[in-house]
Amino acid sequence: MADRRDVTVTPIRGGVATPEGFRTSALHCGVKANATALDLVVLAADVPASAAAIFTTNLAQAAPVIVSREHLESSRGVISAIIVNSGCANACTGPEGHAHARTMASETAQAIGCASRDVLVASTGVIGVALPIDRIVAGIRAAVPGLARSHGGDAARAIMTTDISPKECAVTVTTPRGAFTIGGMAKGAGMIEPNMATMLGFLTTDAAVSPALLQKALDASARDTFNAITVDGECSTNDSLFALASGASGVSIDEATYPALVEGLLAVSRELALAIVRGGEGATKLVAVTVSDAQTVDAARQVARTIANSPLVKTAVHGADPNWGRIVSATGRSGVTFDLANISVRIGGVLLFDHGTAHDERAPQAAEHLRSDTIQIDVSLGSGGPATATIWTCDLSAEYVRINGEYRT
Amino acid sequence: MADRRDVTVTPIRGGVATPEGFRTSALHCGVKANATALDLVVLAADVPASAAAIFTTNLAQAAPVIVSREHLESSRGVISAIIVNSGCANACTGPEGHAHARTMASETAQAIGCASRDVLVASTGVIGVALPIDRIVAGIRAAVPGLARSHGGDAARAIMTTDISPKECAVTVTTPRGAFTIGGMAKGAGMIEPNMATMLGFLTTDAAVSPALLQKALDASARDTFNAITVDGECSTNDSLFALASGASGVSIDEATYPALVEGLLAVSRELALAIVRGGEGATKLVAVTVSDAQTVDAARQVARTIANSPLVKTAVHGADPNWGRIVSATGRSGVTFDLANISVRIGGVLLFDHGTAHDERAPQAAEHLRSDTIQIDVSLGSGGPATATIWTCDLSAEYVRINGEYRT
Repeated sequence: MADRRDVTVTPIRGGVATPEGFRTSALHCGVKANATALDLVVLAADVPASAAAIFTTNLAQAAPVIVSREHLESSRGVISAIIVNSGCANACTGPEGHAHARTMASETAQAIGCASRDVLVASTGVIGVALPIDRIVAGIRAAVPGLARSHGGDAARAIMTTDISPKECAVTVTTPRGAFTIGGMAKGAGMIEPNMATMLGFLTTDAAVSPALLQKALDASARDTFNAITVDGECSTNDSLFALASGASGVSIDEATYPALVEGLLAVSRELALAIVRGGEGATKLVAVTVSDAQTVDAARQVARTIANSPLVKTAVHGADPNWGRIVSATGRSGVTFDLANISVRIGGVLLFDHGTAHDERAPQAAEHLRSDTIQIDVSLGSGGPATATIWTCDLSAEYVRINGEYRT
Repeated sequence: MADRRDVTVTPIRGGVATPEGFRTSALHCGVKANATALDLVVLAADVPASAAAIFTTNLAQAAPVIVSREHLESSRGVISAIIVNSGCANACTGPEGHAHARTMASETAQAIGCASRDVLVASTGVIGVALPIDRIVAGIRAAVPGLARSHGGDAARAIMTTDISPKECAVTVTTPRGAFTIGGMAKGAGMIEPNMATMLGFLTTDAAVSPALLQKALDASARDTFNAITVDGECSTNDSLFALASGASGVSIDEATYPALVEGLLAVSRELALAIVRGGEGATKLVAVTVSDAQTVDAARQVARTIANSPLVKTAVHGADPNWGRIVSATGRSGVTFDLANISVRIGGVLLFDHGTAHDERAPQAAEHLRSDTIQIDVSLGSGGPATATIWTCDLSAEYVRINGEYRT
């Protein structure tokens, strides 16, 4: 077994096309009105790649989610490409929307020379509006000949809706068995135009790994990264996270190297996930909520998530108000059992409440911390339990209301 | 059995002191800094009254909640008074806070001449700050001699924190067995100064009813009124709803007249509950979310509550954006099962989405409705189920953020 000390994870410049075996192409096909805005991406594997994915748990699933799920199953997890458009979510679009998602897959398959089922599909943007499928088909045909290893940055820009900046990163993972690379890109929550905060994430690696093991590693790494963030508690119709593994590095992932794969995926996923929160609609601060001394990790996550989604906590953080009472109250309504006499609350490491006693004389110190752009909130449930969990969120600003309250024109 | 057609519920002017057998007294004792702001209320029954109550499910229960719960049990539901202060929640205040809540009860008991256990206690205001108990004790002693039937309006003002206006109402319920009166007052969500949105409600009636039957009627009427509203999804440390019945009207509540009692309680509770939502922090609109064709009422409520607490829906309503996609997405993440192909969404009665098809040509008509101050959102789950439920909420405005984000000074 590889020892953790034998594994190093080193950040490098790059994104989804950085690992060996992947190429991308991005262009403007006309989904977005602005003619200079990229809105279509092909991410292709040079040879069929192992694939894994995690999809939204929202029951109002968008057509691309349903088609991708079907294709992942019928291809037995070996995939040649992912086709992505931004500007239109192809959600709540009925049978026509399903046909459009299938057309996106089949046109991509035809252009690169594979079966339809070997192509996954993702869309992000306005809900309830039909895709301009003719433009997308023309775009796919134009994009495929341009596939190259150098277009990762364009791909990261092309999946944006109103994200403030593109989100991509890559790492090299060195193990005693050799080195492999993991790259990724994501888009998050920020859409002034009208609609949904869809999270899309794409990870690639040149490690050689079976689809089943890749899925296991993706599940393990997403839990504390992409699945541990919240901007406004809204889980969208289109949220999707994909991972592709080309095997081009020659490094095989087995029992011994599996921890190294997870560690690498965690590093890339954490960077992308935190970038999504920092870029959340109207966000001015990144907030980590850590709950400790819980009986189970699920209980710790449930409390942390309740605090992270509390509008009263999020507005207090926005206003740099060390209002620990709101944190205690959110803890109390989380559904997790605890004894009020045992819990403690810290903001920026400053103890403000424990054993039923307030320490308001320390509030100015906590307020100082809250004026920074990275905030740490710690709650100990004091139940003697072994479990800890962290959820990341952002503050709630008037700008969030402005962005989401503007009338669609 | 009384027929529903034999029962009439007629609104009258008044509040908690309108039913026979109750008196109130309110004054400024010094919990609030502003010397003209009332902050203490005694609500007393001329003879011991049947009592019932519903308390917050938040585990971080304030001292007055714990003491009231104990007293309701040890007095077997027969109560002489409720003592209430505003300006300080006496929550997260440790053993000292418990002692203070007990002192409030014992001082009131001594002043009016009953046992401590015959007095219930409620507090609302800042969390985590000790009560100025000496001022409260002096206030209780000064208030009790002033108990009168004419001070209901003062009582409704004295329980306010930063509520925009007092909330009180009363009805006369006429039955074949005679008439009785129900009155009530409540306070809601609106505290600029620092802290929690505590809901307090007080209902009185001169019907004669056992504590057990009063509790049953209170539970039944609260479900679709006080427990069917949400401002920001926050359930506080102090939320309490009390009901007292004096019997002074001579009308007995038994199996035949029970429906009339529930109907009267519903009328008073609905008016007070909706007033709380309309007066929600930063609220400019009252929004009714009705979910129909669900398999169970609980399922309908769960979907309606998810929509009513969705920040994306609440900001869209604020901006008069008929963004039905956000409503579908919130429905999808509610945890209730449905088939997207069967659901329909109406805003102001205008059908915007059904059977997977958008009707965006009707959006301007729905937008017109959204510019009014009372909004109706209807979602049919189309599952052929028999159940319907309504949850009331308000819009989410930048003012909410301003109110709750201001730094405590």
